[in-house]
Amino acid sequence: MMIKVGILGASGYTANELVRILLGHKEVEIAWLGSQSQIDKPYHHSYQNFFQILPLSCIDASELESLCKHIDVLFCATPHNFCATILTPKVLESTKVIDLSADFRLRDIETFAAHYHTTHANPTLLAQSVYGLCELNRAQIKPARLVANPGCYPTCSILSLAPLLANNLIDLDSIIIDAKSGTSGAGRKAALDSLFCEVNESFKAYSITSHRHTPEIEQALSEIAKEPITLSFTPHLVPMNRGILATSYARLRDPKVDSTALRHIYKDFYKGEYFVRVLDHGLSAQTRWVKGSNFIDIAPYVDTRTNRIIITASIDNLIKGASGQAVQNMNIMCGFRESSGLEAAPMFP
Amino acid sequence: MMIKVGILGASGYTANELVRILLGHKEVEIAWLGSQSQIDKPYHHSYQNFFQILPLSCIDASELESLCKHIDVLFCATPHNFCATILTPKVLESTKVIDLSADFRLRDIETFAAHYHTTHANPTLLAQSVYGLCELNRAQIKPARLVANPGCYPTCSILSLAPLLANNLIDLDSIIIDAKSGTSGAGRKAALDSLFCEVNESFKAYSITSHRHTPEIEQALSEIAKEPITLSFTPHLVPMNRGILATSYARLRDPKVDSTALRHIYKDFYKGEYFVRVLDHGLSAQTRWVKGSNFIDIAPYVDTRTNRIIITASIDNLIKGASGQAVQNMNIMCGFRESSGLEAAPMFP
Amino acid sequence: MMIKVGILGASGYTANELVRILLGHKEVEIAWLGSQSQIDKPYHHSYQNFFQILPLSCIDASELESLCKHIDVLFCATPHNFCATILTPKVLESTKVIDLSADFRLRDIETFAAHYHTTHANPTLLAQSVYGLCELNRAQIKPARLVANPGCYPTCSILSLAPLLANNLIDLDSIIIDAKSGTSGAGRKAALDSLFCEVNESFKAYSITSHRHTPEIEQALSEIAKEPITLSFTPHLVPMNRGILATSYARLRDPKVDSTALRHIYKDFYKGEYFVRVLDHGLSAQTRWVKGSNFIDIAPYVDTRTNRIIITASIDNLIKGASGQAVQNMNIMCGFRESSGLEAAPMFP
Amino acid sequence: MMIKVGILGASGYTANELVRILLGHKEVEIAWLGSQSQIDKPYHHSYQNFFQILPLSCIDASELESLCKHIDVLFCATPHNFCATILTPKVLESTKVIDLSADFRLRDIETFAAHYHTTHANPTLLAQSVYGLCELNRAQIKPARLVANPGCYPTCSILSLAPLLANNLIDLDSIIIDAKSGTSGAGRKAALDSLFCEVNESFKAYSITSHRHTPEIEQALSEIAKEPITLSFTPHLVPMNRGILATSYARLRDPKVDSTALRHIYKDFYKGEYFVRVLDHGLSAQTRWVKGSNFIDIAPYVDTRTNRIIITASIDNLIKGASGQAVQNMNIMCGFRESSGLEAAPMFP
Repeated sequence: MMIKVGILGASGYTANELVRILLGHKEVEIAWLGSQSQIDKPYHHSYQNFFQILPLSCIDASELESLCKHIDVLFCATPHNFCATILTPKVLESTKVIDLSADFRLRDIETFAAHYHTTHANPTLLAQSVYGLCELNRAQIKPARLVANPGCYPTCSILSLAPLLANNLIDLDSIIIDAKSGTSGAGRKAALDSLFCEVNESFKAYSITSHRHTPEIEQALSEIAKEPITLSFTPHLVPMNRGILATSYARLRDPKVDSTALRHIYKDFYKGEYFVRVLDHGLSAQTRWVKGSNFIDIAPYVDTRTNRIIITASIDNLIKGASGQAVQNMNIMCGFRESSGLEAAPMFP
Repeated sequence: MMIKVGILGASGYTANELVRILLGHKEVEIAWLGSQSQIDKPYHHSYQNFFQILPLSCIDASELESLCKHIDVLFCATPHNFCATILTPKVLESTKVIDLSADFRLRDIETFAAHYHTTHANPTLLAQSVYGLCELNRAQIKPARLVANPGCYPTCSILSLAPLLANNLIDLDSIIIDAKSGTSGAGRKAALDSLFCEVNESFKAYSITSHRHTPEIEQALSEIAKEPITLSFTPHLVPMNRGILATSYARLRDPKVDSTALRHIYKDFYKGEYFVRVLDHGLSAQTRWVKGSNFIDIAPYVDTRTNRIIITASIDNLIKGASGQAVQNMNIMCGFRESSGLEAAPMFP
Repeated sequence: MMIKVGILGASGYTANELVRILLGHKEVEIAWLGSQSQIDKPYHHSYQNFFQILPLSCIDASELESLCKHIDVLFCATPHNFCATILTPKVLESTKVIDLSADFRLRDIETFAAHYHTTHANPTLLAQSVYGLCELNRAQIKPARLVANPGCYPTCSILSLAPLLANNLIDLDSIIIDAKSGTSGAGRKAALDSLFCEVNESFKAYSITSHRHTPEIEQALSEIAKEPITLSFTPHLVPMNRGILATSYARLRDPKVDSTALRHIYKDFYKGEYFVRVLDHGLSAQTRWVKGSNFIDIAPYVDTRTNRIIITASIDNLIKGASGQAVQNMNIMCGFRESSGLEAAPMFP
Repeated sequence: MMIKVGILGASGYTANELVRILLGHKEVEIAWLGSQSQIDKPYHHSYQNFFQILPLSCIDASELESLCKHIDVLFCATPHNFCATILTPKVLESTKVIDLSADFRLRDIETFAAHYHTTHANPTLLAQSVYGLCELNRAQIKPARLVANPGCYPTCSILSLAPLLANNLIDLDSIIIDAKSGTSGAGRKAALDSLFCEVNESFKAYSITSHRHTPEIEQALSEIAKEPITLSFTPHLVPMNRGILATSYARLRDPKVDSTALRHIYKDFYKGEYFVRVLDHGLSAQTRWVKGSNFIDIAPYVDTRTNRIIITASIDNLIKGASGQAVQNMNIMCGFRESSGLEAAPMFP
């Protein structure tokens, strides 16, 4: 039996990638694509990759409750505070919702307001939502009606560091995450800073000390550590389309832990997790090896000279960092095999 | 029932892509990977994308006849004149062979010798081989034991121009193909000219007037036209990983044919061909819209001002231009659905 | 003695490049930078490369006549039909003008209207202007008050083909120019199609059969041939910042001309031209070898098999194709050494 | 009066860049180019950018003493332990030497041996050499006969952190440098890992915990701090040609120092240093803004939330990180204006 899904915010990169993944998912049919800017236009006018593959036109999805009667899962790939505004109890009664925006990620609405510069539109729903980092929250995701799909940087960062905190291995005030992302993370917006000539052949940090994903990472890691964590998170822009690499640093509590021991701790922590690949000795995380897939590669090392742990981890930001994880969440919520539609091996080069 | 396949030349880009595609093919199991340079090394040492996905090590495949007893299809992704040298009647008795090298593409061994600077190692087998351009030669491919998988440029060029010749629309001495390829076409060889800094931020033509794919294109188009064709083919190198765009020019015989009529002729010629997308008016072929897929996009236009036909066509050189078409050939030869394992929609960005 | 110059349209890529070149020109001082969108903002807010190098803020240049009293040369790097609108006889009395837009390139205002979709604002001035392709029009440029700086594609295309027409070597109806440009040619406009993720890892043709530079190329070549020429010009977009490569095809009239003879004809035609490098046998034009310089590299070959001439030529589109040639024109008009400020060797990689 | 220079190791990227810079230096003439692999070949066969610009062929420089009689300055752009092997007292009598390799950077030959896996060939000369980080060591460089040109990462890292240590602002055991470099840093060697398709569209860390530039950075910073410093240095590879961005972290000793105060400390420390641009509030270091120039841009911030200092700094690795600084050293040693030949503004895009 197939389920039907609707997608809001169809004109963006994450929706485009979600569509691509779902077209290969044997148990899912895309019922409709909502886009305010593309109403009645064939989807291949936005994304010519789907020419003759997906003969849908975008629709006006403002009558959401009525549209949701006919679908099992709603994906929101919309700007922040949009999903929180339009979701109603009626929608959630008829439909499971996976929100790829930031609306339901942060528990604390004041933190939300401080970072997204707007008042949260729906604190009631927020209280019912579940943070959809599949490997860490599977049990809560399974019965959830509303899942907040994690941010791209948080997915990579949290999975990089979770085993350290779960095993009490590091000084909590010593965490530094130096993250680098491909440009698709900036979305499909006609912004000067995202022009080819501005990004190509350059490298920069941005949102130094103030990126919105910082509180999301701190919230998840604090929950694992059962203590509040404050950390440094610095994102950078890489002249490539896809991929995130996060390089994380922390001070080791127990100097007897070496790289081999650390790798075993990681392999143990992620035992049975298909999408987490803890790399063997000598290998390092590189974005090319996960591109086009839902994998996260993690390479944990101890630097005995400085008594620091150095972790590199890589994901495809549009897949494990967005649409792939959304499908993984759907699979968990709908009782499908968790890797359904996500079996594709990474594509290189 | 699944078939088993072996792959020779596993360390190259085309083998890597073939492996990726075959891992998603429900009816195929990869039995072994042969590589002279990587004997006994895990395949993920060559291609870390397959870490924990494909736990095979490369083997020494010099005992080919014995190795081929256990497989149904052999793919050769080897340098030219290697496959022609090692293939034996016994191999072909037990196994269907799809050769991704140039060994069995050219009917004329003198042309082969002139362009590949070596004497053809096996003219007898050459006589039994079939040129595997699926859309044009399906009937001969079906019963074949030995299929020559077409070159990347020829696939894109021949499919671009075939309808013109089949319909006698152009002056035969007027064909110019100006083709552009991503850098994966150069293979995984440690050559100075293929270094990142030599290719990136540059654009060049190469093998001007003398590229090896010229006779292959001429041979196929001459067969369709039933007259010998001599044409200009100029390849260029694009600073990107994947993709070929061919821009073809020819003088129109009948000035009454306009772009709309021409498009209809193309749509008609490729009717029912799933992998050929003749683009609607206003659209143009772009490599990004076929990347990661087995599609070829073709946009035919008439320039009434100059009385020329201008065709742009795009493929993913590693898929429709190599490993995807090899799988398509396998599907035809083995009686599978022709699109098995090749259903992936193009991946953008 | 130094001259003073003003620049209109300072926020664009060509103005930015002009500023960079002029900062290295010993005989020029930049008096002011006009930009409607950046009035009173430090220029390094637009182009941080000039931080602490050029402490100018942009000005409102609407009082142009008064502003031009204090300068010797005015560069207009403005959108089309802007320069034609604002220029007055008074401005031209006090100031020499080099227009980098399309306003004064086409002799025929109907052709202008057809391609730029607007009525030419100043046919009177058009009649007094000179087409500033330095190597071909030096004598007229020298005394000119108003010079139309050629388009990027036309510079590369016209210099590629001029020797053929001057020597009556080809069939006039056989010219095809297949041109490829880096993305800076699209300008600094926040357009969806110019986003990094839309351009990167892709290759496309655009404006097929209808690009605005076609009549400019035809006009210049027709003048040399002393016969009207109609040709095919197809531009393509390359995922790189800078550079144009034009591959040109034409049918040879005299089959006795071979590549060596052709190269001599080119070397002869461009004898003494410092910025034109006719490449030796075996070399081909590549954009990397001219990047950052005012050179054009030209590699002419005869394909005896098809009786065609194949020329590749490369320029840096922002230098010889725009701001460098503008400075070259200024040097000619002001009596400076023609290479003043343009001596920089190409920068690789 | 012009000086004459010789260059060893002419076939590499740093030599190529050195040649480009020196061609624009009014007081320098390139006397000869030594290259073992290119003996008697025109230099434009290696670097076609110099076609018709530099009509030199490479020479066999094994008779170094005799060759050095005719030059004032010798640049060694050779692999490590080459310069240390060939230099003789006689060479140093007649010629000033600037070594761009690692041979004379590390004071301690055991550290050298540990990181370069070879015994230092000339400890005597090492004792006479000066570390050529111009802004910090100008006085010693001026009279030196043998200058060790700093590594690319060290130049960027040391200048990023020097003011902090000189002002005793941070905990010495808290320094983490997360550095990112364009691919030209890997040199012009036909290595698989440097192929376009391996680097493009990917991002990775390398030499985690063990990069050779670590002891060079520690040595320089320890000298400033007057205490031994151990730090974490992690280099990453960026899919672009040129540029280094270093993101440095350290724990602030005095929480009363805010970003404004910090910036003043930096501006003060680098007062009068033309090539160091301490960026204004709100600006961040980006490699595109220094490309093609000898500048280093530094943006120091305090993160009050974590009590950390975060510095981003960018250079062109081939210029300030190699050949530009070599020319700056030459200018200091020869009494030229320090910016001679290095005045070019950064080239964007």
